[in-house]
Amino acid sequence: MSSSDIFFGEVIGTAMLVLLGGGVCAAVTFKRSKASNAGWVAIAFGWGMAVLVGGYVSVGVSGAHLNPAVTLALAIEGTTPWGDVPLYFASELLGAMIGAVLVWLTYYGQFHADLGDMADRKSENPGPVHGVFFTSPEIRNTVQNLVTEIIATFVLIIAILTQGLTKEVGLSGVGVLLVALTVVGIGLSLGGPTGYAINPVRDLGPRIVHALLPLPNKGGSDWNYSWIPVAGPLIGAAIAAGVHQLAFA
Amino acid sequence: MSSSDIFFGEVIGTAMLVLLGGGVCAAVTFKRSKASNAGWVAIAFGWGMAVLVGGYVSVGVSGAHLNPAVTLALAIEGTTPWGDVPLYFASELLGAMIGAVLVWLTYYGQFHADLGDMADRKSENPGPVHGVFFTSPEIRNTVQNLVTEIIATFVLIIAILTQGLTKEVGLSGVGVLLVALTVVGIGLSLGGPTGYAINPVRDLGPRIVHALLPLPNKGGSDWNYSWIPVAGPLIGAAIAAGVHQLAFA
Amino acid sequence: MSSSDIFFGEVIGTAMLVLLGGGVCAAVTFKRSKASNAGWVAIAFGWGMAVLVGGYVSVGVSGAHLNPAVTLALAIEGTTPWGDVPLYFASELLGAMIGAVLVWLTYYGQFHADLGDMADRKSENPGPVHGVFFTSPEIRNTVQNLVTEIIATFVLIIAILTQGLTKEVGLSGVGVLLVALTVVGIGLSLGGPTGYAINPVRDLGPRIVHALLPLPNKGGSDWNYSWIPVAGPLIGAAIAAGVHQLAFA
Amino acid sequence: MSSSDIFFGEVIGTAMLVLLGGGVCAAVTFKRSKASNAGWVAIAFGWGMAVLVGGYVSVGVSGAHLNPAVTLALAIEGTTPWGDVPLYFASELLGAMIGAVLVWLTYYGQFHADLGDMADRKSENPGPVHGVFFTSPEIRNTVQNLVTEIIATFVLIIAILTQGLTKEVGLSGVGVLLVALTVVGIGLSLGGPTGYAINPVRDLGPRIVHALLPLPNKGGSDWNYSWIPVAGPLIGAAIAAGVHQLAFA
Repeated sequence: MSSSDIFFGEVIGTAMLVLLGGGVCAAVTFKRSKASNAGWVAIAFGWGMAVLVGGYVSVGVSGAHLNPAVTLALAIEGTTPWGDVPLYFASELLGAMIGAVLVWLTYYGQFHADLGDMADRKSENPGPVHGVFFTSPEIRNTVQNLVTEIIATFVLIIAILTQGLTKEVGLSGVGVLLVALTVVGIGLSLGGPTGYAINPVRDLGPRIVHALLPLPNKGGSDWNYSWIPVAGPLIGAAIAAGVHQLAFA
Repeated sequence: MSSSDIFFGEVIGTAMLVLLGGGVCAAVTFKRSKASNAGWVAIAFGWGMAVLVGGYVSVGVSGAHLNPAVTLALAIEGTTPWGDVPLYFASELLGAMIGAVLVWLTYYGQFHADLGDMADRKSENPGPVHGVFFTSPEIRNTVQNLVTEIIATFVLIIAILTQGLTKEVGLSGVGVLLVALTVVGIGLSLGGPTGYAINPVRDLGPRIVHALLPLPNKGGSDWNYSWIPVAGPLIGAAIAAGVHQLAFA
Repeated sequence: MSSSDIFFGEVIGTAMLVLLGGGVCAAVTFKRSKASNAGWVAIAFGWGMAVLVGGYVSVGVSGAHLNPAVTLALAIEGTTPWGDVPLYFASELLGAMIGAVLVWLTYYGQFHADLGDMADRKSENPGPVHGVFFTSPEIRNTVQNLVTEIIATFVLIIAILTQGLTKEVGLSGVGVLLVALTVVGIGLSLGGPTGYAINPVRDLGPRIVHALLPLPNKGGSDWNYSWIPVAGPLIGAAIAAGVHQLAFA
Repeated sequence: MSSSDIFFGEVIGTAMLVLLGGGVCAAVTFKRSKASNAGWVAIAFGWGMAVLVGGYVSVGVSGAHLNPAVTLALAIEGTTPWGDVPLYFASELLGAMIGAVLVWLTYYGQFHADLGDMADRKSENPGPVHGVFFTSPEIRNTVQNLVTEIIATFVLIIAILTQGLTKEVGLSGVGVLLVALTVVGIGLSLGGPTGYAINPVRDLGPRIVHALLPLPNKGGSDWNYSWIPVAGPLIGAAIAAGVHQLAFA
């Protein structure tokens, strides 16, 4: 796979992932949105379909990693060359930042009119737009939050590894659908405590964009928490790759 | 593909699309409906399954465009001959109008009994039945609304182009399902600000029918806004075709 | 296909269809049910998955009609011999009655303990358990109700005919899934006015069982309305077969 | 299939099943969860996607039984050797216990902070965390509850047997999806009275873990009821295998 394929596939795929994923958070959170208060089923299916679209767009080009945890696991497995890993990581981060900017453009009116009276936020973080950009735990505790992200990402990666998620092994449209539904399941079942980042760039990319954008009343970007949704998914992916090789190879 | 195949496939397919899409809006909006207040998850899945049914019916006949934005993108890509574009557009518009009339017939009792006390409308437009026929923005602003429709349609078209949605490239039932779930995702994630027309005829066809039908208390047809759900999707489709050719071809 | 295949396939398949379909109505309606008040999205997906399971069980045996409207349409098309039609009809009706009895057994405690204080019924019919067994219109009007059932069944049948739903043309598991999701869509979009029978035996079979079962406080079986969910689907199926042959054959 | 394949496939697959299944119960039940009160649609899809992930991970290794009721039915059918049954049962039970421990770790903060003020429990059992670990009936009656579990498991097993759910007969990713959606349907339609164990180890494994874990305010483990979600599914599976052989073989 060429560097250009990796770059374009991962940038566009991850941008679509974060646009739809951040988008559903905006849709449900803002008051002047037709989906206001649509609930957690909407969030879980929104993120799942975000994976479907991002994966669907990029699977034939770059193998649809869209997530450094996936790239790391496939490198450990020997499917993705370690030499390609930096390009995957950089493309995924750039794509996630572009996706976050697109969420802001899509909901520009809401960001600038609704702030101050957001609907039903439950996070303990200050600032009304955090949930659109990055995850926050319901109960803040470093070990607990890290464990939750490790377990949730383990589920994602073990499911992907047992079927293979690369261009080489012929991931079909059905494969993308199964991964998307896996993410629906992770969201419904394991998203309660921390909001299921399960992807370092899905959290870090939009967090950087949040820090840079001129949003009214945006609060801080909660950098203290920011390493957990990066480290947790990478640790979970490494454990999943290890278990996969021990148990199934 | 013969002109007759294009005509019948697009008319019937788009009629099914708009019947089920407008139908779910009616189902959720009217008070004397078993689905009254079923919420945004119902709307998003309703429109997604509308795409499934419309696509399923017509994909083997006309390639299941059902949307001038799809036709435009496939013409730019060279998949659909430019000479077929006017017939596609006309068939899609006629199908959308038929679909809107079928919504009216299906919910005839509700249209004529419930008006005046519709359930939970949030749109700022006057007139209780607007949402069944055409889209309205939550916050009315030409540039913002246009940008939202451009971005949402870009997502639809880039997803379709990367897999191909024409009879020639063999879109299977699974392909139609993936497009349908993409539309579920767009609805959940990007539908909040403008109600996601993402299809010129889905908005314009029912709007014309709304203007013509003898509905009680129907209000105006909001023609001032009507160009945005036509222009936005066409612009979004052209951008998606351009990005697709630059990045992936 | 042997008579025994038709009989066993249709009886068991239709019993599963009505068990899961009537079951979700019971699940959502009864107060002492874990799914109490789960809403219309639950109903629509419940009936859709009922079609999935019924179809999945019988498609390789009897072709998974499960519905006289499907049988009629396939007979008009020439796919099912007219001579097999009476056996299909009888097997479907028997299966639907068995399914209704199974719903009663599954929710026996609820039927006998909850009656008198059912949750949130909106139908205008008296008697608390009607909705578990048969459909009722929100607004009672013969022509309107018939038109709604005709249109909703037309959608089901045209979708099936364009892809084929018989053993001979090789309906795969994916085909059953697409029909099931079509029924999810019909429920969400067109079920509001009459509760979408779209299948004569789905309504008539359980209605007969309702008349026979010793349920407390069950009210009448609303025989005045009973012909509409029989005639409407058959008319809709005939129209769909006609349109299919005119437009697509 | 080797003993090691059966062991690792069933342990990891059943652990994923119970992690996601118990997880969605925790997600919806706890107050300090982002999915708090997400409702029965979330529960039903959560358990369905749990089956998808567990099945997806193990289908190519151990055939993805994940449930003694499935193992029993496949042994009766002659697909699984009786000699493998004890290993399947033990692996499934161990996997279910591991899954329950993972739910506890994922929601550790919620288990230890939220207890005492759980959201909206409707079960008549004392103790706030029961629903996360094991099922309880809405109306406690031995015969009724047993009948409900028998019928619900019959539906699962007849659907699996008619298509085959073993490595040998080539269950594809699509097959796993169809079984997962069958479980969504059973949850929506038949889960109301008893919470649809439909799997002995899904109930017994977490119940043992509940008895062992040092949870605050956990109440008893309701051992009086514990035999019903074991016996009911096994009886339902045996009946389904019998019906399958009589009617379809």
